Amino acid sequence: MKLLEDRILKDGKIGAGNVLKVDCFVNHQIDVPFMNDVTKEFYRLYKDEKVTKIVTIEASGIGIACLTAAHFGVPVVFAKKTPTNNISGDVYTAQVYSYTHERNYTIRISKEFLSPTDRVLIIDDFLAKGSSLTALLSLVNEAGATVVGAGIIIEKTYQDGGKIVRDMGIRVESLAKIRSMDENGIVFE
Amino acid sequence: MKLLEDRILKDGKIGAGNVLKVDCFVNHQIDVPFMNDVTKEFYRLYKDEKVTKIVTIEASGIGIACLTAAHFGVPVVFAKKTPTNNISGDVYTAQVYSYTHERNYTIRISKEFLSPTDRVLIIDDFLAKGSSLTALLSLVNEAGATVVGAGIIIEKTYQDGGKIVRDMGIRVESLAKIRSMDENGIVFE
Repeated sequence: MKLLEDRILKDGKIGAGNVLKVDCFVNHQIDVPFMNDVTKEFYRLYKDEKVTKIVTIEASGIGIACLTAAHFGVPVVFAKKTPTNNISGDVYTAQVYSYTHERNYTIRISKEFLSPTDRVLIIDDFLAKGSSLTALLSLVNEAGATVVGAGIIIEKTYQDGGKIVRDMGIRVESLAKIRSMDENGIVFE
Repeated sequence: MKLLEDRILKDGKIGAGNVLKVDCFVNHQIDVPFMNDVTKEFYRLYKDEKVTKIVTIEASGIGIACLTAAHFGVPVVFAKKTPTNNISGDVYTAQVYSYTHERNYTIRISKEFLSPTDRVLIIDDFLAKGSSLTALLSLVNEAGATVVGAGIIIEKTYQDGGKIVRDMGIRVESLAKIRSMDENGIVFE
């Protein structure tokens, strides 16, 4: 998606450890009018899939998921990383390793909000090694719901998360695919 | 706001410790089409205030803040509860006590995303004892930005957060104000 690639080239910063920082429009400050336009692409791609629910993971997935859900007219359920008394009753859980925070999380979704009749679109900001996405898939599968696919803002195709998930037969649509990234700049697929 | 009060009466649950659970439409599952309508009320209330930025706190504030920001056509900045390499450079920090998780957090916003020219609307899902809201006010004040007010989905007026913040001269608009809540039900202001 050229609109998004241009914005990444303009405002993305490559930090220590070859980390792409897009905190000025994706995951700390969220440029809502821009991301509202960007997420319309997820609607275009998945509009015939009879999506009933958007699933994401806190925290940086939530904003993008809500903007996407507004295009579909469906609810969002976000997996939580901490036990909380906001969630009542039984939960589905999965393990995810966060490379950002360098530790394991248990993520959880209340059983109340996913059912076998749901057709789920999973939304997240990044796909790299696939730890979050495979954990979300595991939660949705445990509920017996159907995954229609995943919508990702930025995929790093030089890491293997995308291949792992596509090899599972899951449709993955990434709006910007980064083939390589170093001090010389960013190359998209 | 009658629309919201009716939904709280229909779907809200009063749990152990007199906690109001609205996890089916506000803070775990987010009923996006409904909350999209509800947050239009924040736009109606604050549309003449030349808002340049919406500020909230992760995680349950983010979805509501993004839907609100779409009505205003402005970005969201959300305060983070954990140190992360997604944030580069200097940060504003404040302390907040979470009664939900029963511990203190340091919250932080990158200095890059708040400036003295900003006119900030603070959005959050709940206002009870005011710990989150006063911490967010402190961050915004530290940046020298102007707070035009706060927009809250549910205020518990039997706790003193709303009074504390209004006594500071801050405009607080809460869409549902709960005067009392017990096993006999919920009474709104």
